[in-house]
Amino acid sequence: MAIDGSMLINGQARRGQGAHFTATEAATGQPIAAPVFASALPQDVNDAAEAARAAFDPFQAISLEARAALLDDMAQRIDALGGELTERAMAETGLPAARLEGERARTVGQLRMFAHHVRAGDWLDARIEPALPERQPPRRRLALQRVGLGPVAVFGASNFPLAFSVAGGDTAAALAAGCPVVVKAHPSHPGTSELVGRAVMAAVAAAGLPPGVFSLLVESGHQMGVALVQHPAIQAVGFTGSRNAGQALMRVAAARPQPIPVYAEMSSINPTLLLPAALAARPETLARDFVASLTLGSGQFCTNPGLLLALEGPGLDAFVGAASAAIADAPAGVMLNPQIAAAYERGAARECEVPGAQLLAQGQAAPARSRAALLRHSAAGLRASGHLPEEVFGPFGVLVVCADADEMIALLENLEGQLTATLHLDDADLPLARRLLPLLQRKVGRILANAFPTGVEVCDAMVHGGPYPATSDGRSTSVGTAAIERFLRPVCYDGLPDALLPAALQQANPLGLRRRVASRFSDAAA
Amino acid sequence: MAIDGSMLINGQARRGQGAHFTATEAATGQPIAAPVFASALPQDVNDAAEAARAAFDPFQAISLEARAALLDDMAQRIDALGGELTERAMAETGLPAARLEGERARTVGQLRMFAHHVRAGDWLDARIEPALPERQPPRRRLALQRVGLGPVAVFGASNFPLAFSVAGGDTAAALAAGCPVVVKAHPSHPGTSELVGRAVMAAVAAAGLPPGVFSLLVESGHQMGVALVQHPAIQAVGFTGSRNAGQALMRVAAARPQPIPVYAEMSSINPTLLLPAALAARPETLARDFVASLTLGSGQFCTNPGLLLALEGPGLDAFVGAASAAIADAPAGVMLNPQIAAAYERGAARECEVPGAQLLAQGQAAPARSRAALLRHSAAGLRASGHLPEEVFGPFGVLVVCADADEMIALLENLEGQLTATLHLDDADLPLARRLLPLLQRKVGRILANAFPTGVEVCDAMVHGGPYPATSDGRSTSVGTAAIERFLRPVCYDGLPDALLPAALQQANPLGLRRRVASRFSDAAA
Repeated sequence: MAIDGSMLINGQARRGQGAHFTATEAATGQPIAAPVFASALPQDVNDAAEAARAAFDPFQAISLEARAALLDDMAQRIDALGGELTERAMAETGLPAARLEGERARTVGQLRMFAHHVRAGDWLDARIEPALPERQPPRRRLALQRVGLGPVAVFGASNFPLAFSVAGGDTAAALAAGCPVVVKAHPSHPGTSELVGRAVMAAVAAAGLPPGVFSLLVESGHQMGVALVQHPAIQAVGFTGSRNAGQALMRVAAARPQPIPVYAEMSSINPTLLLPAALAARPETLARDFVASLTLGSGQFCTNPGLLLALEGPGLDAFVGAASAAIADAPAGVMLNPQIAAAYERGAARECEVPGAQLLAQGQAAPARSRAALLRHSAAGLRASGHLPEEVFGPFGVLVVCADADEMIALLENLEGQLTATLHLDDADLPLARRLLPLLQRKVGRILANAFPTGVEVCDAMVHGGPYPATSDGRSTSVGTAAIERFLRPVCYDGLPDALLPAALQQANPLGLRRRVASRFSDAAA
Repeated sequence: MAIDGSMLINGQARRGQGAHFTATEAATGQPIAAPVFASALPQDVNDAAEAARAAFDPFQAISLEARAALLDDMAQRIDALGGELTERAMAETGLPAARLEGERARTVGQLRMFAHHVRAGDWLDARIEPALPERQPPRRRLALQRVGLGPVAVFGASNFPLAFSVAGGDTAAALAAGCPVVVKAHPSHPGTSELVGRAVMAAVAAAGLPPGVFSLLVESGHQMGVALVQHPAIQAVGFTGSRNAGQALMRVAAARPQPIPVYAEMSSINPTLLLPAALAARPETLARDFVASLTLGSGQFCTNPGLLLALEGPGLDAFVGAASAAIADAPAGVMLNPQIAAAYERGAARECEVPGAQLLAQGQAAPARSRAALLRHSAAGLRASGHLPEEVFGPFGVLVVCADADEMIALLENLEGQLTATLHLDDADLPLARRLLPLLQRKVGRILANAFPTGVEVCDAMVHGGPYPATSDGRSTSVGTAAIERFLRPVCYDGLPDALLPAALQQANPLGLRRRVASRFSDAAA
């Protein structure tokens, strides 16, 4: 598929009239000469948003099967991009081919999972209270289903150029909910975005849907992204990126005449707790697996285990020695773009300057590459300095050694909301784990045991979310089928004749849904 | 039960040290001498919020049965307040005894409904993905449930002194979700609030729960309410009241270091559409039922049908004549408090001054009472003036006559989000109704046919909510079992040993829940 630097607006490729820019080869920092991209102007934003507005009612009205078929077709078309997609994404992001092929499989699998979920229909939350004509006062038949919020603005993430980008989790969840999507491509992988965007646009056209169901905007900066969030047609925002950018979008959305929900995934240092028995039993294994997780993909995962907590005691010295050695062996890595590389250097330097910080080890150095690093603090030292480790996006870890469980708990209580927390534990650690669990449950969206958080399974039971500021809205997940709920709202149909009801709520139950009827679940007519 | 003007904080009655105030007899505007209430000070707010924080983990940890039993016991204790509660509420609100007894029954029924819902456990949304140890990479067992958000601040509503107040919908939903509640009593019914609050406090004590599960603050003004929303322990807000007050709380919550969700029900004019065939067939019946709904409880319902839309054509004149006559016959009504009465006069005068407004009829006048009123506009006239009718809280209706369906649709497209919309229709109106439905579905939380919206059934299928500015958050309802969801968030337990899992997610399924296991629903072990 040819890319030429176009935006895709309302079913048409359109050349932007704003600032020109090119992609950058992540591994070298050199520009990728072709194509030249041209940024959106306000008219482009308006056209995309208005097209999405016009598409909303008809897109809501199509059958669940038609909606699912769109997602399946998107999956097939993205899969068919094959090596061309991998090659372009490798150049733009510096991520290796195997990772990108895996990410394409995840993206495609995610679309198919949502297609399956749409067909199943449980997410409609269909509820029926039969009429009670004899009651005083009589009750009309009441029926509830969930409907889409409206057009959704999706901001592609730098670190998942496929799975959290143009046809990533937010786009898949929004389309599954029947919400048209306007994507703002991440400027560090615009060619990857155009390739995927053209596949999505073709799927929308092949399905005979209104072309405003999907548009793709490009921009070298962020003004048009702000304009998109401000546009009155947009009813929700999905974003993955830095805390500053996410908070800025939250403010923009809250300041609209009609405030709208923002689902921003922003930052997390993913506390990883080495409980005493586990630490004593397998310090070297824990150290090796920790460093592997910390440095995976140059540490550019939202779930990177950036904060380790351990108690003074058996195994700690062995762990520190093995982890330091593994860090020292870690090769330097390519970062996603020069801005992220520079931010990593600044963040690492900032954390190293905190009083009491002891640099345990640094990874190998190489030109235009970033080095892993591991710091050590004592909990008492941190308390004295008033500092809490902050996310350094990249392969940067901080080990905090606590004198006892109370000190560990006090430190955790002071942490902000996180995506994940991990317990490494053996049977003898269960009492301490039980003490920690209520606290962790308040602080994070996913609690792991004896694993590392960098793998995120795409399934019904996943939560990739967490209390602020890990995300803007801890009531939601961006991964897994539960993500569809972020783009839905309930509507009650009170006494409507069957001829006016949506299929899900009709008396005969033509979709064969399992519905909540008079407080019990039933797939019968009602 | 004796009331003495105390607040109820962390299980103790406490005399406020802030400004003194008394309740006002709504029917006369005279102070009710005893008791004298004393407003909260910042220390009281802090004590209530910190007690709620301390209560959260233990309250989350009790069994569903224990949580349900608390709600049932609250219901019984509130019911037992009997005539004392009705008498005090009559004095403070001017609402008649039958209405207050009905509202008490609704409040008690609502608590019992949530008790039943808590026991059923579906709202936990338990999901399990079994381990796949043979897969590459292996998958750990993943399990998801929803947990409470944390302590909730609830603001009592003026117009439902029982059902949307101290132990009303938000309090019941929050406690059902395992969230401690700090109520800020509405200053126009502080005695009613104390009576109910003492019943709730006694139920919490009898259950042996941490006393911070429930606190009640009183204040003549609103500064302490703001301080409560700003308190870092508070994790969500439930509010029913004016748009200005709701928007102010939204801004306060968004400006916190950690923004929190606000569920504010704020304003609605509840468009009611008289479609041509229905209007031609039964203009007098529609007029009589409309005026009955408009003037019910002096029009002080969130779902009051303040905006009528009709097409020029058969039946319109008969409707106007009958509605005008019914309005003219409507007795003057007592408003909930002098501020609301004054705001009604101001709002009615403002709407009467809009160019093109024709005052069709006014209800009967009486000293210290408010008169019903019905205005008429043409859609063309409104378009020319650029005005859209706004909520006038009270028995105030505006009829807008449209030349054709396109004009009706254009006017509806310009309306803000609403709680409800109603269609009066006959079979011949179905094509027009079908055209209107997608629009109405975007604009409102509940669509009615051939009824009036002032009755709100408390059940699984109700939605009492709607897009902004009807509420702050159209993703939620404040009435019905679905209201529990506003105080929940999902948590994933990834590879946790059974010994650490909450009961809902344990392998043996000890609660006998219907869980989503590998994408199918099952109540078996998994």
